[in-house]
Amino acid sequence: MSQKIKVGILGATGMVGQQFINFLQGHPWFEVAWLGASDRSAGKKYRDATVWRLDGVMPPGVADLVVNESKPDSAPQLMFSAMDASVATEIERAFAEAGHVVVSNSRNHRMEPDVPLLVPEVNADHLRILPRQADRGWKGRIVTNPNCSTVVLTMGLAPLKPFGITKVMVTTMQALSGAGYPGHASFDMNANVVPFIKNEEPKMESETQKILGECNGGAFQDHPMRVSAACNRVQVLDGHTETVAVEFARKPSREDLLKAFAGFRGVPQERELPSAPPCPVVYMPEDDRPQPRRDVNRFNGMSVFVGRLRDCPVFHWKFLAMGHNTVRGAAGAAVLNAELLKSEGLIDA
Amino acid sequence: MSQKIKVGILGATGMVGQQFINFLQGHPWFEVAWLGASDRSAGKKYRDATVWRLDGVMPPGVADLVVNESKPDSAPQLMFSAMDASVATEIERAFAEAGHVVVSNSRNHRMEPDVPLLVPEVNADHLRILPRQADRGWKGRIVTNPNCSTVVLTMGLAPLKPFGITKVMVTTMQALSGAGYPGHASFDMNANVVPFIKNEEPKMESETQKILGECNGGAFQDHPMRVSAACNRVQVLDGHTETVAVEFARKPSREDLLKAFAGFRGVPQERELPSAPPCPVVYMPEDDRPQPRRDVNRFNGMSVFVGRLRDCPVFHWKFLAMGHNTVRGAAGAAVLNAELLKSEGLIDA
Amino acid sequence: MSQKIKVGILGATGMVGQQFINFLQGHPWFEVAWLGASDRSAGKKYRDATVWRLDGVMPPGVADLVVNESKPDSAPQLMFSAMDASVATEIERAFAEAGHVVVSNSRNHRMEPDVPLLVPEVNADHLRILPRQADRGWKGRIVTNPNCSTVVLTMGLAPLKPFGITKVMVTTMQALSGAGYPGHASFDMNANVVPFIKNEEPKMESETQKILGECNGGAFQDHPMRVSAACNRVQVLDGHTETVAVEFARKPSREDLLKAFAGFRGVPQERELPSAPPCPVVYMPEDDRPQPRRDVNRFNGMSVFVGRLRDCPVFHWKFLAMGHNTVRGAAGAAVLNAELLKSEGLIDA
Amino acid sequence: MSQKIKVGILGATGMVGQQFINFLQGHPWFEVAWLGASDRSAGKKYRDATVWRLDGVMPPGVADLVVNESKPDSAPQLMFSAMDASVATEIERAFAEAGHVVVSNSRNHRMEPDVPLLVPEVNADHLRILPRQADRGWKGRIVTNPNCSTVVLTMGLAPLKPFGITKVMVTTMQALSGAGYPGHASFDMNANVVPFIKNEEPKMESETQKILGECNGGAFQDHPMRVSAACNRVQVLDGHTETVAVEFARKPSREDLLKAFAGFRGVPQERELPSAPPCPVVYMPEDDRPQPRRDVNRFNGMSVFVGRLRDCPVFHWKFLAMGHNTVRGAAGAAVLNAELLKSEGLIDA
Repeated sequence: MSQKIKVGILGATGMVGQQFINFLQGHPWFEVAWLGASDRSAGKKYRDATVWRLDGVMPPGVADLVVNESKPDSAPQLMFSAMDASVATEIERAFAEAGHVVVSNSRNHRMEPDVPLLVPEVNADHLRILPRQADRGWKGRIVTNPNCSTVVLTMGLAPLKPFGITKVMVTTMQALSGAGYPGHASFDMNANVVPFIKNEEPKMESETQKILGECNGGAFQDHPMRVSAACNRVQVLDGHTETVAVEFARKPSREDLLKAFAGFRGVPQERELPSAPPCPVVYMPEDDRPQPRRDVNRFNGMSVFVGRLRDCPVFHWKFLAMGHNTVRGAAGAAVLNAELLKSEGLIDA
Repeated sequence: MSQKIKVGILGATGMVGQQFINFLQGHPWFEVAWLGASDRSAGKKYRDATVWRLDGVMPPGVADLVVNESKPDSAPQLMFSAMDASVATEIERAFAEAGHVVVSNSRNHRMEPDVPLLVPEVNADHLRILPRQADRGWKGRIVTNPNCSTVVLTMGLAPLKPFGITKVMVTTMQALSGAGYPGHASFDMNANVVPFIKNEEPKMESETQKILGECNGGAFQDHPMRVSAACNRVQVLDGHTETVAVEFARKPSREDLLKAFAGFRGVPQERELPSAPPCPVVYMPEDDRPQPRRDVNRFNGMSVFVGRLRDCPVFHWKFLAMGHNTVRGAAGAAVLNAELLKSEGLIDA
Repeated sequence: MSQKIKVGILGATGMVGQQFINFLQGHPWFEVAWLGASDRSAGKKYRDATVWRLDGVMPPGVADLVVNESKPDSAPQLMFSAMDASVATEIERAFAEAGHVVVSNSRNHRMEPDVPLLVPEVNADHLRILPRQADRGWKGRIVTNPNCSTVVLTMGLAPLKPFGITKVMVTTMQALSGAGYPGHASFDMNANVVPFIKNEEPKMESETQKILGECNGGAFQDHPMRVSAACNRVQVLDGHTETVAVEFARKPSREDLLKAFAGFRGVPQERELPSAPPCPVVYMPEDDRPQPRRDVNRFNGMSVFVGRLRDCPVFHWKFLAMGHNTVRGAAGAAVLNAELLKSEGLIDA
Repeated sequence: MSQKIKVGILGATGMVGQQFINFLQGHPWFEVAWLGASDRSAGKKYRDATVWRLDGVMPPGVADLVVNESKPDSAPQLMFSAMDASVATEIERAFAEAGHVVVSNSRNHRMEPDVPLLVPEVNADHLRILPRQADRGWKGRIVTNPNCSTVVLTMGLAPLKPFGITKVMVTTMQALSGAGYPGHASFDMNANVVPFIKNEEPKMESETQKILGECNGGAFQDHPMRVSAACNRVQVLDGHTETVAVEFARKPSREDLLKAFAGFRGVPQERELPSAPPCPVVYMPEDDRPQPRRDVNRFNGMSVFVGRLRDCPVFHWKFLAMGHNTVRGAAGAAVLNAELLKSEGLIDA
């Protein structure tokens, strides 16, 4: 008899929903017990409502669950939201109002002044904004994780924050799995780069400032650094690779930065949360690493890999960052958020 | 009976040599009449000495030419050098000494203080350094074209030079054909990005400063802007894509920049050199262009395509540049250099 | 003032329609003068009704044409049909009834007993079925070209037909462009083979028997050979590659087969039709050719390349065939059909 | 203190050697204790002698082992051979002579009349040939596993053997990892199929006949079926996909074949060998499966997946088979062979 916490997934039939299901297989605390999707799917068994898009086959444990309408009624307290942005706003609010804790991967609430945009190793203290959500009349809460490309960047920058980051220039080479399903046509991507991802650049820029910013006196204050992003899609399955150049208030030494990367730990590591990687940021000393295909699945996809730290002729330092966009950048990010909430006592046992 | 100028190719059996042969097919001024390679190949017919690596089959016109040792004796005045850097220095010098005009794609002489590093639309006036080569006792001359990734960048920047460029940050996504043959193992590149190209970043940085710099009083003076490059290999056949951020002495308007791109012409266009594209820099207004696979072969591969001009939160402007690395960035670049030399009267009819 | 024959394209805004437009650029006989599409597009300029999917940009000559409803009224006599199978049946018949010559790439009429399924080099004589279409009350006519994978196979087999083919086993590795747009998701195809193409295998099997069959006494008679196909999608942009094993009534010699490939010519070559390749079937003697990326664009994409002829331990001979699926297998096939019709006097000057 | 059996790896620094090291990580019976390579590497630590080519990083447990010359002296009894064919013959014999049990992935001894070519689920009884090796004066033994493409085919055919296979036609689409390192140039493979793999077709044909054949009276007797293979390289990382057509003495029913696939088990399953997959052959009922990227890693890469069983218009049945070429087709195959030998008492505890 399972003593695990039952969890629900909104948007369960889509590709992000499938990634939640995959990531939660064998989770020591959480058990997928409720699946929500559009009315079209409601009432069907998950296996009948869903075309499984991920590698391998649908986990047998969820195949016979009956898909629910996206209404709070019967749902567990802890809800993961993998909904499309076109519908997430109203539904997530309805669940929060009804007392659920909504851990969302959708972008809809990320930038709201009373919603934490969490990377648990980086800004776990942003949770202190949560009481303000009561002002909306919500009995429950909403927390969000950032856009996949933002997670990789903020994890790479967080160890360097103490040195006083002032400017960041980043170019991304993003994986196909980040585009949802069906995403790009294979005809368009074959032997090609698509140098444009709609809305991605402003999201990366503003989300990064919020995440690395402060939460004081019941309000968020953006980090004052300036961030500029150029986002591209490349023929990689999983793993966003980012070239980063950083300017600081004063140029730190190479040793300082390497020490900062190596020593970086956060709340998830302190509390040994189940999905926390031992080292959230792993510096690879090889000339040509990290590489997405070769490194993306290490440490269960939950670490961000950095490398190629070198002097920048324009800013102070350049380096590479790479992380798993659908794990560390989506499903795994949200699950780690939920583990953080649980460890804070915000979810009932 | 052909009245064309006979030309030779050093390093003719390699992949760059093959690109020269392909590009020179049907050239209105030049005719490949002499092929040089290593002693191992000398004396064989080209078809027997060469594994043809490019698409299609070996052009029949060269297949029966006998490959020569890389010695000046019987060679034509105009020599294209496609030699590997490991051997180019001595051989190119020997040809220059013996009175040949060596138009080299190799990196060996690019940064020397008496050798022009040419992008004919950008710095044709650097040819005025050539008389200094007589000080070496050379009866002939050496001119060079830049590294493939540099050509794309300098073509994209040249129209903006009048606005006073002060800083440039560039990230490249470079094509497989830029790595020579065999280059990367397909096992390494499959569904991957290799975020490192040996020596590429310093080359891009210093070559760009030389090309956009001045040639006064018998010496080159680097452009004072600072350039920082991050170079990556992606799964694209031909065409280097580059994200560029630029800071100016004073921020120009969007209209100014678009006008500058659209109106940019150089000596090759004025003189209507055979390989000169009508517009050296083509601005594409679409959200998601240029793309390497879709645009690289337009205008015979000799234009550089730019797009996505947008405000940069850190510098003044960001944009994309993309060009054909083995045409505009190698064989086509050298042939255009030779056409420029011919138009200057530096090659005998 | 143009003396060319004006032609129309049904389904002009789709990817196959775009391929027709591309292929007809600069055609010496035909000029695109009329574009038809769904009611949604009708009345708009082509540039506004169409997202250009092919490499490069929309040819300027068609960009300002106004798209028509798919009705015969104002359309030219010669109509190319690039319509989706879901709508082609009724519309093609309406045009045929109204007196148009419909040269269709759609599958809808291919297997009908009074419609020729043409590969002009192989079965130009099947045109003699056309008068039977008058029995339907059509003032015009419909001719079709086969499925892209069938064209490659039948071109490869046609030279061998005189030796009495009895059995054919074929496995295809088909290009992404054959799946229409958007076709496969890039997420699904990345580093993958999709070993299934809906309805493709029975189409290849039955179409091949019809094309290599006879047209006698006003009826088609299938070729009695048995054909078995296994169809797969691979990460190639253009060009279907097929491994073929053939059994004959009696085993011919290798020399006989090579001679048959080399000497194969058809009506298009005899009449020097504008789109006819000099050699419809090109045997490549190299160990590892043909290869789709390297050979697909030779001879304007209109030849089929064969290679690797070798003994088969089960049947008599094995070989490879490869051809351009959107040129020789679609737009180019239809244009060659139209040229054949014109050369037969079936299209008014 | 480990009670595991110490094993050695010949050719340890190459890519196949690395696959052995990866596959043996955490093996319950075997422990890598000895690494052999060329004289050039001997004496160095493994980490210094080896460029790690596989995903992730070199397992720390082997990094500090000192590489040995490929001589029997200090080596453990159980030796895995991952050597290149150019050197394997003499070295494997020297080890066998000296009393070692050589479990080889190299092709050199596969077809010898006293060496078993094992797929443990298929022909474990071929081990009874082993005593004949004593006639060579060997105190030890050599056993081999087949070529990677052969393993997939023979696993797919073995369940059907009772129905009397008479003819097999197979076309392969093989993964890049099967070509060794560096294998194909990425320039050659990009958006391409290379329809040729040197010596692969005759190997598949003859090895399949040996494996499915009998071992009676101290000699092997090939299976009398005829096999014809066409081998191709495609852009897939791991996993060979094969289209198979089979003729039988008498056509079995679809149900018979599905039952045969589903019920197929071998000695490794009976004895519950550590690397034995629960089902060696897994039939996938979906229209479009198996697919290499999506299925290759299921069951630790040790199952072969079949699908798309359908009538063949030429032979009786067609189906697909797909398996992991470097696991089930190389390192995993050899380790399973060693487990079989151990279970037979042929390796000392």
